[in-house]
Amino acid sequence: MELAGLSSACAIQATYPPSSHRAVLVVVGPGNNGGDGLVAARHLRHFGYDVSILLPKQSDKDIYKRLLTQNQRLQAAVLSSLPDDLSSFSLVLDAVFGFSFDPKDGVREPYKTILEALAALPAASSSSSPTLVSIDIPSGWHVERGDESGRGLRPDMLISLTAPKLCARGFEGSHHMLGGRFVPPDIASKYKLRLPQYEGRELFTRLPARPGKEQGKTADNSSRNSSSL
Amino acid sequence: MELAGLSSACAIQATYPPSSHRAVLVVVGPGNNGGDGLVAARHLRHFGYDVSILLPKQSDKDIYKRLLTQNQRLQAAVLSSLPDDLSSFSLVLDAVFGFSFDPKDGVREPYKTILEALAALPAASSSSSPTLVSIDIPSGWHVERGDESGRGLRPDMLISLTAPKLCARGFEGSHHMLGGRFVPPDIASKYKLRLPQYEGRELFTRLPARPGKEQGKTADNSSRNSSSL
Repeated sequence: MELAGLSSACAIQATYPPSSHRAVLVVVGPGNNGGDGLVAARHLRHFGYDVSILLPKQSDKDIYKRLLTQNQRLQAAVLSSLPDDLSSFSLVLDAVFGFSFDPKDGVREPYKTILEALAALPAASSSSSPTLVSIDIPSGWHVERGDESGRGLRPDMLISLTAPKLCARGFEGSHHMLGGRFVPPDIASKYKLRLPQYEGRELFTRLPARPGKEQGKTADNSSRNSSSL
Repeated sequence: MELAGLSSACAIQATYPPSSHRAVLVVVGPGNNGGDGLVAARHLRHFGYDVSILLPKQSDKDIYKRLLTQNQRLQAAVLSSLPDDLSSFSLVLDAVFGFSFDPKDGVREPYKTILEALAALPAASSSSSPTLVSIDIPSGWHVERGDESGRGLRPDMLISLTAPKLCARGFEGSHHMLGGRFVPPDIASKYKLRLPQYEGRELFTRLPARPGKEQGKTADNSSRNSSSL
């Protein structure tokens, strides 16, 4: 979780630097994806962003409490409900649901309203609407079948963790990054993952946009492991 | 520990890249400094180094066992005794003792012989002897009074963590780095730490060599907190 969140923060810093995207809202869900978001929030704060955290539900788990406290010590604002107007943020980081979310179970409040608001953001950011970035999976998408409703989130950047999931075929944003430089070679070999090279000490690497069309093999292989990694 | 070890690995990668320093020996002590070394070893492996780990004593603690297993899955070699000839390594990472070590208690075996061997390495590395890098404190030095015996380790790089300790005044190697970009502003302010700026998403930053002569104020302030941070 520490490295997943840090690599997400690094991918954001490299693409949307604080000089142009200082005000960030991190939307935190109830599970691991939310934990990654809280870690990313802390590092973004260290990288010089103004960070607000939308935490619709407090978690009882110790790790989440600790991650939240760390952010509060860094003067991150913590919100419990979605602001009416998102235009004061330059970037919204979607860390609500991850690969284990199944759309057939439906989305309950308070997340339903929040995801609808994020889905209403235009795919192309502008001065009046923030850029949307999703960690691992655009929240509400199915890990393999993607945005089945056709009314889901359309992030400008997707940060796949460990390996891209099959749903990334449907990603049409500008930047597809892979984060989480922590797959041991025996795991990569066992699952026949063809992972791209990371450069130097970078914790993320850029994937071709729309990997389904350009990198079908990678997406195919990785998808098989979406639940085991 | 994760971020301390990662920032150490990043500082090493930036200074001694694997193209020139592929074979690394990480010497792991019994406490937190050793844990930082095990985390650094794992990241160095991901960064493309050949990593051997000298673990003179197995630890009973779960976290150390886990860190060791992670390295073994990355094909890091684990040694239990110091090789007679260190010339096959390009770099030795000293993660034996940290800031809580007190030389007046003496160094017991198996660490005594190991530290003597590391102290015998020439301060300037050459094709026949590896470069020595220390995490936080050159092992065996006193956190404030430094190398009292005058026969201690002379690393080419010192990676101070969180803030340089007072003993860093006695550091005469080529590269002094600060790692651990995780000090909240309230802590920095409370202890009057004047920490340098980190660039972009880097997890380490370069300090002037011999900070005691050029940056006495920083070293003074930070040393007061060497035990509390």
